[in-house]
Amino acid sequence: MSKFGFTLSATDGKARRGVVTTAHGDFDTPAFMPVGTAATVKAMLPGSVAGTGAQIILGNTYHLMLRPGAERIEKLGGLHKFMNWPGPILTDSGGFQVMSLSELRKMNENGVTFRSHLDGTMVELTPERSMEIQNMLDADITMAFDECTPFPATEDEAATSMRLSMRWAERSRQAFKERPGYGLFGIVQGGVFESLREESAKALTNTGFDGYAIGGLAVGEGQDEMFRVLGLTTPMLPDDRPRYLMGVGKPDDIVGAVLRGVDMFDCVLPTRSGRTGQAFTRRGPLNLRNARHADDPRPLDEDCACPACGGHSRAYLHHLVKSGEILAAMLLTWHNLHYYQDLMRGLRAAIGEGRLEAFTTGFAAAQDAGDIEEL
Amino acid sequence: MSKFGFTLSATDGKARRGVVTTAHGDFDTPAFMPVGTAATVKAMLPGSVAGTGAQIILGNTYHLMLRPGAERIEKLGGLHKFMNWPGPILTDSGGFQVMSLSELRKMNENGVTFRSHLDGTMVELTPERSMEIQNMLDADITMAFDECTPFPATEDEAATSMRLSMRWAERSRQAFKERPGYGLFGIVQGGVFESLREESAKALTNTGFDGYAIGGLAVGEGQDEMFRVLGLTTPMLPDDRPRYLMGVGKPDDIVGAVLRGVDMFDCVLPTRSGRTGQAFTRRGPLNLRNARHADDPRPLDEDCACPACGGHSRAYLHHLVKSGEILAAMLLTWHNLHYYQDLMRGLRAAIGEGRLEAFTTGFAAAQDAGDIEEL
Repeated sequence: MSKFGFTLSATDGKARRGVVTTAHGDFDTPAFMPVGTAATVKAMLPGSVAGTGAQIILGNTYHLMLRPGAERIEKLGGLHKFMNWPGPILTDSGGFQVMSLSELRKMNENGVTFRSHLDGTMVELTPERSMEIQNMLDADITMAFDECTPFPATEDEAATSMRLSMRWAERSRQAFKERPGYGLFGIVQGGVFESLREESAKALTNTGFDGYAIGGLAVGEGQDEMFRVLGLTTPMLPDDRPRYLMGVGKPDDIVGAVLRGVDMFDCVLPTRSGRTGQAFTRRGPLNLRNARHADDPRPLDEDCACPACGGHSRAYLHHLVKSGEILAAMLLTWHNLHYYQDLMRGLRAAIGEGRLEAFTTGFAAAQDAGDIEEL
Repeated sequence: MSKFGFTLSATDGKARRGVVTTAHGDFDTPAFMPVGTAATVKAMLPGSVAGTGAQIILGNTYHLMLRPGAERIEKLGGLHKFMNWPGPILTDSGGFQVMSLSELRKMNENGVTFRSHLDGTMVELTPERSMEIQNMLDADITMAFDECTPFPATEDEAATSMRLSMRWAERSRQAFKERPGYGLFGIVQGGVFESLREESAKALTNTGFDGYAIGGLAVGEGQDEMFRVLGLTTPMLPDDRPRYLMGVGKPDDIVGAVLRGVDMFDCVLPTRSGRTGQAFTRRGPLNLRNARHADDPRPLDEDCACPACGGHSRAYLHHLVKSGEILAAMLLTWHNLHYYQDLMRGLRAAIGEGRLEAFTTGFAAAQDAGDIEEL
């Protein structure tokens, strides 16, 4: 089994093109990871997810530990086999979703205790337990257990939160079971404060991780502020490890983050939007609920090779959305994931050929050109 | 364009194997038609429906006339193009669903007036309007407009209802636009009364239709009574036209009806069951909600070639069902449709090879053998 690793093949400004090698295969960066929360990328067959060009997906520790349970998934051969996805999987640590989704949570130095929303039992999640769960899931990329610093936070609050996360990162590193092809990522916190980001990045790089995530962004600070913090933070991270911006984002968020040196992304936007009648296209987003699509014989995007655009009109998709049909979610999710992977393919090719500036200019112009609707 | 027609290729007892030729291609009989109510076989891409072996699907006039509207579908190129299904389509007349689904309906000699559940407008459906709508939808097989006689009904009630349907059938025949490759089916009514079925069959065959449906069954009379009425009715129908048993049914209903000379079927059971966690298999039905599947690594059916059975365990399907995931509906619908088409393939092959009795004995023994659960 090959070693977990990252190979840079090209740079264009701060943007990077590369390949990450894992126990379950390689993936090209910049990469967008579809979110497979409960062991399914919602409304997609796993083969269809791969067909869009996605090479790695994300699973959520919080959901999977509660249902069907990490022990059960391990007994059934791991998450890859359980959900029929043979490629690389990254799992989050559970920390973010415990704080955003669970009730009656109590946090202390040791970890977080919370009440399961499924059966009411009290559950404890610690750095050690998070590593154990992600190991049972057989995640190719394990995320260190951390607290996502709330926004807004004062500098003192952000510092206290970040330092707890750094102690938890150290415990995660100690508890992580090393295996060839499996990697552990640390998560830089520190809110919007440069000195705290610096302190966090130093703590993590001193310990040493296989990749570095940038956490605590896309939580309400706005795109300008996110780009500012990203611009500060990526230079603090080693060049020879992948960089992952968690929970991002809209297409233009991704383009801006790639320009600032980010390699990996995940976001529920393309899948969730697909279930609410919204489509991303080269010419901006479309809301298929809108009555103006009712008689429109055109596909969502003439240049898209996805099954939704092959043979289905906007009029038909409008009808499916209005009728609450499952096929609406299926086709729009498929299209959105395909569009996101087209974007990543375009970014990778542009970086490889040293024409990223022209690509991003063309991207922005096309997005502004027409069909724009507010989502 | 070829003429609409039916070619018998083999018989085994009263069972028949044949081919129906339509404007949009041929289909083999005995045939099961998946139901595509609102211009979608729920939770399936059209290519996947075809992949199960289905060669013809059913569309519902009642749903489509209300949303998106027959005029709109015609303007967009017809139902085949609208829903991206290039093969044959049969549409029902709307009569049955007006009576079972709509509110404030009033029936008289001319037709039925009802209130749309979508926008509250009053809508009239007559034999002439039903023919016009099915023509706009571009249905390969149009069904005569009729009243499905309620069950139970006295002989007088059944006679009155059947005679109205026969007058409507005559008006349907007059209003139907003849085009090469397009056919019109009459519907035999008469409840459970032999003399009424006889009177109905005679009225229809005197007028002359391209196929004959048997209506008013599977409405609560039970399988034994259904088989008795079928056994009486199919001999009243011409050998050289296809026979269609509407709204049937469970796998053993279909086997029994094929034994009694029926060629075509439609039913929501495989698709609807797929959305409620239920699977049909060679060894009987399974309810995937049942906790006994939670750790079961086996596929639904080891002998099934569908995508649900290729790579997904019962444990995984149980998890998806319990989690309310769309993928549960997708995989179970796919499996159920595949199972139904496997059954039809098996029936056709057995008839062709003169071994239908052995096939039906084996079918019944396997259904009883194991895994049986009450649905």
